[in-house]
Amino acid sequence: MGGEIRIVQLGKHLLVELFGCKPEIIDNEKFLEKILVEGLLEAGSKILGKFFYKFQPQGVTGVIAIAESHLTIHTWPEKGYAALDIFTCGSRMDPWKVYKRIIGEIKPNAAKVLELGRGPLTKPKIVEEILVR
Amino acid sequence: MGGEIRIVQLGKHLLVELFGCKPEIIDNEKFLEKILVEGLLEAGSKILGKFFYKFQPQGVTGVIAIAESHLTIHTWPEKGYAALDIFTCGSRMDPWKVYKRIIGEIKPNAAKVLELGRGPLTKPKIVEEILVR
Repeated sequence: MGGEIRIVQLGKHLLVELFGCKPEIIDNEKFLEKILVEGLLEAGSKILGKFFYKFQPQGVTGVIAIAESHLTIHTWPEKGYAALDIFTCGSRMDPWKVYKRIIGEIKPNAAKVLELGRGPLTKPKIVEEILVR
Repeated sequence: MGGEIRIVQLGKHLLVELFGCKPEIIDNEKFLEKILVEGLLEAGSKILGKFFYKFQPQGVTGVIAIAESHLTIHTWPEKGYAALDIFTCGSRMDPWKVYKRIIGEIKPNAAKVLELGRGPLTKPKIVEEILVR
């Protein structure tokens, strides 16, 4: 009927929560950096810059700027918990591919993913809430 | 009646969308880096590392790792749009203080903020949707 307004979504954002992670895995900043970088490259992302930090006595923070936006991770090994954000723009790269690669390596007991569009924001929806094992 | 389970929230995440920004402001990576860093420091944050990138012909991406998690920005000057994420853990630092400082400098025509808890995820809520001017 005409009148339809098509809003072009600039980006897609996955907010990922991982529970029941093994502390030694999510406290290993070198391992986390490796699997995040590999996951991005395999998904066709272009890495612009990155910074990883190991807290004492425990915990890791990592931020990676990519041509398609960003990937971040923050871990609380003492709680078995990690928060991931995968924000991508354009249609060239699939953030779900990165997500699947990362959970395949971290192997949490459970994962929850909230997906929303950015630019403009869309209504958030829980798109995955699973017991991995 | 007893039985209440109190879940301690590890983090707070503001997803911020800025519309109607002046292109010359959100295409200036030095200015954006300066106001983001100042906003973080004024809010009591500890900056661990950062990376900013200027796209050609336009656009800026910036990621800042902080002791309290992260701050990121991605801009589309040709659309007058910027996406900000402010993820903080602990109670020492208020992400809203950083947000208010940044919009006071960028001066968008409109802003929308979605707030949610991380670790575990809480139901997202639009907590600010405003015409700034």
